[in-house]
Amino acid sequence: MDKQKIEILVATKVWDPQEWVDSLSQFDTVSKVHVWPTEEDLSKVEALFVWKPLDQGVIERLPNLKWISSLGAGVDHLVGDAQIPYSIPITRIVDPFLARDMSNYVAMGVLMHQRNMGANQQNQNHSSWERLTYSNLKVGVMGLGKLGSHCVNLLRQMGFDMSGWSRTLKHIEGVKTYAQTELKPFLSELDVLVNLLPVTPDTESILNSNLFEQLPQGVYLINVARGNHLVEEDLIAALNNNHLSGALLDVFRQEPLPKENPLWTHPKVTITPHVASVTNPSSALELLKANIKRLIHEEELLHVIDREAGY
Amino acid sequence: MDKQKIEILVATKVWDPQEWVDSLSQFDTVSKVHVWPTEEDLSKVEALFVWKPLDQGVIERLPNLKWISSLGAGVDHLVGDAQIPYSIPITRIVDPFLARDMSNYVAMGVLMHQRNMGANQQNQNHSSWERLTYSNLKVGVMGLGKLGSHCVNLLRQMGFDMSGWSRTLKHIEGVKTYAQTELKPFLSELDVLVNLLPVTPDTESILNSNLFEQLPQGVYLINVARGNHLVEEDLIAALNNNHLSGALLDVFRQEPLPKENPLWTHPKVTITPHVASVTNPSSALELLKANIKRLIHEEELLHVIDREAGY
Repeated sequence: MDKQKIEILVATKVWDPQEWVDSLSQFDTVSKVHVWPTEEDLSKVEALFVWKPLDQGVIERLPNLKWISSLGAGVDHLVGDAQIPYSIPITRIVDPFLARDMSNYVAMGVLMHQRNMGANQQNQNHSSWERLTYSNLKVGVMGLGKLGSHCVNLLRQMGFDMSGWSRTLKHIEGVKTYAQTELKPFLSELDVLVNLLPVTPDTESILNSNLFEQLPQGVYLINVARGNHLVEEDLIAALNNNHLSGALLDVFRQEPLPKENPLWTHPKVTITPHVASVTNPSSALELLKANIKRLIHEEELLHVIDREAGY
Repeated sequence: MDKQKIEILVATKVWDPQEWVDSLSQFDTVSKVHVWPTEEDLSKVEALFVWKPLDQGVIERLPNLKWISSLGAGVDHLVGDAQIPYSIPITRIVDPFLARDMSNYVAMGVLMHQRNMGANQQNQNHSSWERLTYSNLKVGVMGLGKLGSHCVNLLRQMGFDMSGWSRTLKHIEGVKTYAQTELKPFLSELDVLVNLLPVTPDTESILNSNLFEQLPQGVYLINVARGNHLVEEDLIAALNNNHLSGALLDVFRQEPLPKENPLWTHPKVTITPHVASVTNPSSALELLKANIKRLIHEEELLHVIDREAGY
């Protein structure tokens, strides 16, 4: 085996793998790119690049596997997968554009809510010149990792009154931050709640009736993390009794969101089909290239996840 | 006359003046606040604070007038008013929140266009999970004064590819700027055109067929400056022949926009009722307070406009 080149298996379930294969094949550190499903001999594959979900039976075909990378920022599809031995490091894409795109999407959602763009559209439908007022908003972000901290910084610069809540207390200039035990005071002062948490056993279904009750009346919810964070029926109940004023949702328990799901037609819900932040192949490829070199030179990989913490 | 206090006349046509009157009356440099129209003796009034338009006959009632301030960023309602002698300085509100709010509104418009929020709403109406793609956009801002330069800086930080065009060539880090004679190359590379010019004889009706023809096909227009910049029928023609892809309009030749105006119902036009940036009384009052002191102490006023240039 040429130690300067490795074989890779690409397993993308919902994406067309071709763009990845074309790009990876051009790396001078890659001898062959296989695409799952395949009958080819995979015994020399050292790296597995996955977008979710990973089929059962893939790992047992890879006796020489040394590294798995998610092709997105999320790794929850890999963390809980029992077929992956703990000895194999899992990395994720940390793409500066992912954080940028996510923050821009959140900014758009906050601004559309602040500027009453829904009511404004209704007014336009009736040719009605009604100057709806706006005021500054208090926006709280749950999760202050790379995405969450980028988001609070952008919105702070736009003049919003920002706060943040995270498992380990963070310090961000100009942002009021709360520790894990301070969820209640964090929630009690908000106008908009943004979820950018990772999915872990602690955070799954965290957006539920109990949490909503700790928010002041009229809060707007933006969920851009994972569908498993949200108890959909609890959200619908909180919207229907006017405790929450609306929601912008980009992620869902089941994707594509089934036609019969009542969120589609709820008048206070805006749905986007998991597009808040889409991995940009060119910047993701830079990171994969760097990690392939590190694997070959037996150096520590970049952005390895903590499988116990779950992200 | 007590030289440490002055009398003020407030003339606001479309706004309720009460909030201004209440606040100004509390200044220890103000002896009396009159509200137009009034039968009171105005012979001691030294300062006139106006939101548009200014009625004819006001100035001749003010023999002791020394200063006029617009209560907003715009002064086009005062610049061309023949009843105002050239000897009287006109100032305008330069409110940091005005620039912030304006930039935020423009950012919202650019993002809603980039993220296909119109088509997305149509998809939601049909419970359709269609993942529309987005790409980075080239956004050009016409006018690089306080509002325009704030706007290019925010959008640049959000990752957009920014350029700017202004009467006098400006230098802004990371932004490709064009001089007055370089309108054609400025326009030729854009995805989104934002107008933040002042209204002057040179810029009135600048958004016309001739300019639109110099844009690539598919450009989106955002007009947040003044209605007089735009030739509405030329915009409608450019939208109807698909040369422009859409428009977000906050300002109009006639406001409120008349019910029968075809812009209301054009499927590619989003209308907001002149709310992109609304003067925040508290920050405007800080500036008025400072200028009252300067008037009393015969110091130069802040933010005096150049009546020849028109802004």
